[in-house]
Amino acid sequence: MTYRLLYWPGIPGRGEFVRLPLEAAGVAYEDCGVERGGDAVVSYLEAQKDHPAFAVPLIETDEGERIAQVANILAYLGPLHGFAPGDARERRFLNQVQLTIADMVEEAHNTHHPVSSGAYYEDQKPEALRAANDFRETRIPKFLGYFESIAAANPSGWLVGDAWSYGDTSLRHLLQGLTFAFPKRMAKVAGDYPAIHALSDRLGQLERLGAYEASDRHQPWADGIFRHYPELDG
Amino acid sequence: MTYRLLYWPGIPGRGEFVRLPLEAAGVAYEDCGVERGGDAVVSYLEAQKDHPAFAVPLIETDEGERIAQVANILAYLGPLHGFAPGDARERRFLNQVQLTIADMVEEAHNTHHPVSSGAYYEDQKPEALRAANDFRETRIPKFLGYFESIAAANPSGWLVGDAWSYGDTSLRHLLQGLTFAFPKRMAKVAGDYPAIHALSDRLGQLERLGAYEASDRHQPWADGIFRHYPELDG
Repeated sequence: MTYRLLYWPGIPGRGEFVRLPLEAAGVAYEDCGVERGGDAVVSYLEAQKDHPAFAVPLIETDEGERIAQVANILAYLGPLHGFAPGDARERRFLNQVQLTIADMVEEAHNTHHPVSSGAYYEDQKPEALRAANDFRETRIPKFLGYFESIAAANPSGWLVGDAWSYGDTSLRHLLQGLTFAFPKRMAKVAGDYPAIHALSDRLGQLERLGAYEASDRHQPWADGIFRHYPELDG
Repeated sequence: MTYRLLYWPGIPGRGEFVRLPLEAAGVAYEDCGVERGGDAVVSYLEAQKDHPAFAVPLIETDEGERIAQVANILAYLGPLHGFAPGDARERRFLNQVQLTIADMVEEAHNTHHPVSSGAYYEDQKPEALRAANDFRETRIPKFLGYFESIAAANPSGWLVGDAWSYGDTSLRHLLQGLTFAFPKRMAKVAGDYPAIHALSDRLGQLERLGAYEASDRHQPWADGIFRHYPELDG
């Protein structure tokens, strides 16, 4: 089994939420955009017939099934490759947490593109200043406080169940993205969220994940979902 | 089996995506917010212990399981009550479509609250005018064209499989919401999307769904996700 991952090269983006658990679990996949360029992704999307995806990331299985939307991809891969709990009820909670992480990711993107995802940041700067202010003051504490309460209540220290899951890799990437985009603010509030920072640190010690993050397969921060504009960091 | 639905009263909101398939399939549920008021929802959320929800809607089962996030709730209920396909691959595609509908719902909300979901519309009007313009010109054609292509390609005329599913009820509500919020624009482009409008009309002829929509259980449009501000309709 080798999956094909379709996602834009040059940024971690939403594709990273799929790459991380695959890498950490040692599951083979071809990263088509990174290996063959963005044009390969465009061609792939244009050639879709039945069950098309609205957007990437998507994965294709050896049986030719195409699955898109991050939470949908992870809910499929997790139980097959051991990065989701065996218990169905726990898996539903994991999916719920993943969707809440996705909501925060969407709001983080909205801070620099509040008016139009198709227009330049420079053309929506006043709006972005207001949106980022609200995100820093209101949304970061609300979302991170929620994730903190879940990790702190779980004896294992992970988000769900007694082993790491795709929820943990997603939360680690979210924390890294927020720290890249809002370094001053994240440093200021880090002490408020010890359980999720500890969870992220433990995950970073997984041999395969560490090797991936140090490799050139790992896409650098660039103008993706998480962007560092100092003026948006307050 | 009687589910308890927790959601804010007075608006259809995200709760409506849960109510519609339950109503259309004749599944019993207690609409706690509508029946007991918003304070009951607040008390419920504050009393959450393990596996808390970040936000409503959530449902509680007879076994005491609490499930939140619309797509997660629907993925759970659909196979149990006959409003999701029996085939696992089709169910994954349905989940994918539901998540894409959720993305468009989020963008529709963003048109009137581009800067802060916690601030008044009146305090972000210039930003809202720009966001709504982009939504009307770019995002409505892109999203609705995608849903249209799926329904038009399916011999049954439904989004996925050969019977109505929660994807269809969600798409109907999305079309109704867009038509409420952007009546001029939606009238202008209606002819571009015959398959999804036909799907919505067929669904409205289901006896139970029609009875629900005519009943006083059905929450009126108000200042929820979909809002009608004439200046945002172009």
